[in-house]
Amino acid sequence: MTEQEPTSGELPTVPALSRRALVGGAGALAATGALTVAGAVEADAATSGGRLPSRVDVVVVGGGLSGLVAARKIRHAGKSVLVVEARDRVGGRLLNHRLSTGHVVEAGGAFVGPTQDHVLRLARQLGVDTFQEYIKGNNVYIDSLGQREEYTGTVPTGDPAIADALKLINDINSYAAEIDVSAPWTHPKAREWDRMTLDEWVRRNVVVPPKPGQMNSQTQKLLLAYLQAAFGNDGLEMSFLFFLWYTACSGNERHVGTFDRNSGTDNAAQDARFVGGSQLLPIRLARILGDRVALNAPVQRIRQTSSYVDVHTSRGVVRAKRVVVAAPPAAVLGIDWFPMMPVKRMAMLQRMPMGTLMKCDAVYETPFWRKAGLSGSGLNTSGAVLTCFDNSPPGADAPGVLLSFVGGSTWRRYGTMTRAKRRAAVLEGFAKIVGDQALKPIEYTEHDWTHERWTYGSPVASMAPGALTTYTDALWRPFRRVHWAGTETSTYWTGYMDGAVRAGERAAVEVLERL
Amino acid sequence: MTEQEPTSGELPTVPALSRRALVGGAGALAATGALTVAGAVEADAATSGGRLPSRVDVVVVGGGLSGLVAARKIRHAGKSVLVVEARDRVGGRLLNHRLSTGHVVEAGGAFVGPTQDHVLRLARQLGVDTFQEYIKGNNVYIDSLGQREEYTGTVPTGDPAIADALKLINDINSYAAEIDVSAPWTHPKAREWDRMTLDEWVRRNVVVPPKPGQMNSQTQKLLLAYLQAAFGNDGLEMSFLFFLWYTACSGNERHVGTFDRNSGTDNAAQDARFVGGSQLLPIRLARILGDRVALNAPVQRIRQTSSYVDVHTSRGVVRAKRVVVAAPPAAVLGIDWFPMMPVKRMAMLQRMPMGTLMKCDAVYETPFWRKAGLSGSGLNTSGAVLTCFDNSPPGADAPGVLLSFVGGSTWRRYGTMTRAKRRAAVLEGFAKIVGDQALKPIEYTEHDWTHERWTYGSPVASMAPGALTTYTDALWRPFRRVHWAGTETSTYWTGYMDGAVRAGERAAVEVLERL
Repeated sequence: MTEQEPTSGELPTVPALSRRALVGGAGALAATGALTVAGAVEADAATSGGRLPSRVDVVVVGGGLSGLVAARKIRHAGKSVLVVEARDRVGGRLLNHRLSTGHVVEAGGAFVGPTQDHVLRLARQLGVDTFQEYIKGNNVYIDSLGQREEYTGTVPTGDPAIADALKLINDINSYAAEIDVSAPWTHPKAREWDRMTLDEWVRRNVVVPPKPGQMNSQTQKLLLAYLQAAFGNDGLEMSFLFFLWYTACSGNERHVGTFDRNSGTDNAAQDARFVGGSQLLPIRLARILGDRVALNAPVQRIRQTSSYVDVHTSRGVVRAKRVVVAAPPAAVLGIDWFPMMPVKRMAMLQRMPMGTLMKCDAVYETPFWRKAGLSGSGLNTSGAVLTCFDNSPPGADAPGVLLSFVGGSTWRRYGTMTRAKRRAAVLEGFAKIVGDQALKPIEYTEHDWTHERWTYGSPVASMAPGALTTYTDALWRPFRRVHWAGTETSTYWTGYMDGAVRAGERAAVEVLERL
Repeated sequence: MTEQEPTSGELPTVPALSRRALVGGAGALAATGALTVAGAVEADAATSGGRLPSRVDVVVVGGGLSGLVAARKIRHAGKSVLVVEARDRVGGRLLNHRLSTGHVVEAGGAFVGPTQDHVLRLARQLGVDTFQEYIKGNNVYIDSLGQREEYTGTVPTGDPAIADALKLINDINSYAAEIDVSAPWTHPKAREWDRMTLDEWVRRNVVVPPKPGQMNSQTQKLLLAYLQAAFGNDGLEMSFLFFLWYTACSGNERHVGTFDRNSGTDNAAQDARFVGGSQLLPIRLARILGDRVALNAPVQRIRQTSSYVDVHTSRGVVRAKRVVVAAPPAAVLGIDWFPMMPVKRMAMLQRMPMGTLMKCDAVYETPFWRKAGLSGSGLNTSGAVLTCFDNSPPGADAPGVLLSFVGGSTWRRYGTMTRAKRRAAVLEGFAKIVGDQALKPIEYTEHDWTHERWTYGSPVASMAPGALTTYTDALWRPFRRVHWAGTETSTYWTGYMDGAVRAGERAAVEVLERL
């Protein structure tokens, strides 16, 4: 293999206890990808790892990308910091998985692209390279009749549903261009858009309606293929305003966010991947932070006074001047807050369900589809594989890997069957796109994020109708001595690694200005 | 006053430690109504109260009505039981408030009516009487022009919007009659109905649309007055199928649920109240259970093995053969589960936000409106008071009390202003209905349930689009040795006290069959 995640030999020389705190016990296995089944590690390990420091300037709750970025920035400013992480590994929704060949693929977030400047800069700083997602050759589209069509570019053009979808996307882009990403609730149509679900808006605006007795037209099914991968839902549980805001956030200060930049591959959010796997970023941040990262330390209670904050973890209480919380919505709700979280934030978090999503990968000796002139990218509107990507690691000797996102109602159907049945359905889905050779992988691996107790789903939380216009900035407005990070609190690339980095940096600045 | 909640003299003779466990410290004050401001009691009191027993047959998580009913039934069967309650009081969403006159009104759930057989039977067993809600005289309706109209019966008839609303209600009733309350997802139209919000269904079916530039027609505003009181939301965050199911649940095995029985007063869900306040029910259940109720004991972790369950609380670990969890959705999500809760249940709980609601009461020397031929019941479509009820305690010497529910978007507007401003707006709303005498109360009291850290809102949780058809019976299906209670898990009178009692009884039966 060309690159891999750090081995224990790469770990810095720190005292035994500190090393244990960083990648202790089973955590070391998980961080190197040898152990990826969530929940397989009995959490009584949380009692191990020793006592935490009793006082630091800042406690960061959550050792995902966002929290670790915040901690590093705070540390760079010369302040003492401690990251407390519930799991036995760092990385949150970033999780490397080592294949039997020794190569690494991501079980969680993976892609990166232009305008995601913050995560790309971080990667350069950490010495993590990127490589282009493979896009040469033809993409494949299976139409409503099951007919296979090869095409180039972002969308197939031979299907009448495409024109319909493109009209919707055009409207989405023009609305999103009007959204102020830091205050989407101020748009003149904000209440009208926040009142309906994305699904309702699509139903009202598709030109070609579903056939009698069918729930969705082909146009809607095309959109579902995107939504299920991008949000882990079918658009029923998010407001149209949230979706427009999310689209508007898919850019930066100089480039307005668009549907295409959000959903596309070439020169868009799925443009490239990280050599060695995206979890290298949090792993290397944690290495820099050393024993300032404490694993197996779920936070039970956060108690603020006018002069300090006590963070109660299963490994003891740490007193800090300021706290950064970088955890997913349901995990934040689960903390016993004193005084209570602001009611608007508590209400908003209850209206931000995480998607239901799993990633399924099939591994082959080689990326055989490339020789057949195929990119490995495909789109279907039925079966277990609605979207297919070439997920092969970089390098001439690397195996071929096909990836499918199984989310939303497709997760409901396929995510809940036996692994053997699902494997067969996923391989059949790959075979429809790249041919029957896909039926015989040398390895099959999957990761169902609905089983992750500290994330509660994947890939992101969506906001219910009414939430954005009712609770507005509750998600990122500081709460006394507590500041909020996590990708959901970013106003550019929210939901992505770049948003996680941005939110962590913003929270660190907030804290440093007040220390 | 004619009746009041038990004083400490009514408490059974139990050792000092046990009494402390039952109504210890500030809890005793709260339980007797002298202290009702949520969050005012510093929860470090949770460390007081002594150690819990290390082993019992059954631990019940949550000392609300549902959990206490389950515990009593398990105790009656001769099994050992312990209720662990996070707060310093029992009762959950039932909370008596003592007025300065000494009389009691409810800061939380209050009303009861025919077909709510289970809670009525419980009240008889506990010696808690009911009295009829005052309905003599005329009701008042303020129409879209601000014109005041007196009427009798459930709805005013002089407004053209009423006919429109009645048509919608008629449709709701006929659909609800087709719903199997124990399996609403099996209705042929379940997926169609679960795909849209209640708000969307109303928008699509109102005959008279909103005027240009307005969000809602008068018909929709009438429905909002009901929704905001009944659900604490505007119908944007619940699926139409959930609403139909909730309506269908407003009945019992012999009487089909209807909108009218759910929303009405006379012979409906708001037919009567409890003498001494509804919290008498949990208070008396707790008295029967004695030191089997432990307060100030929030549950942090539930760990199941094949032969027992360990319930980790701030007051120690209790090992049980079976566990009943009777806590609101967000509180259950906040527990660290090992093994993890079933993913479908975890996903469903994330799609069940609690409403945003407060109750506001104004107290007068006498119920002066009665002499003017008014019932005290009123309906408006603007201002802080959309619905007004006579909330006077029983007895000839009792003061007059007017009650308003401030929920959903009305809570967003009025719940977030200063208490003084809100008080003025609420009194003005009362005055529009019963006259200017309402502007001069002898007392004003309010309780905002969004500030309740262990309930996360009020009065009930609503289910987001897609939840019922996706996760089906996840809410009440037992999880190994854990069984589920709480009103949200009932299939009759879900959301009401009767549903809480039913769910507690059902969970106890499940447990007893397996002990």
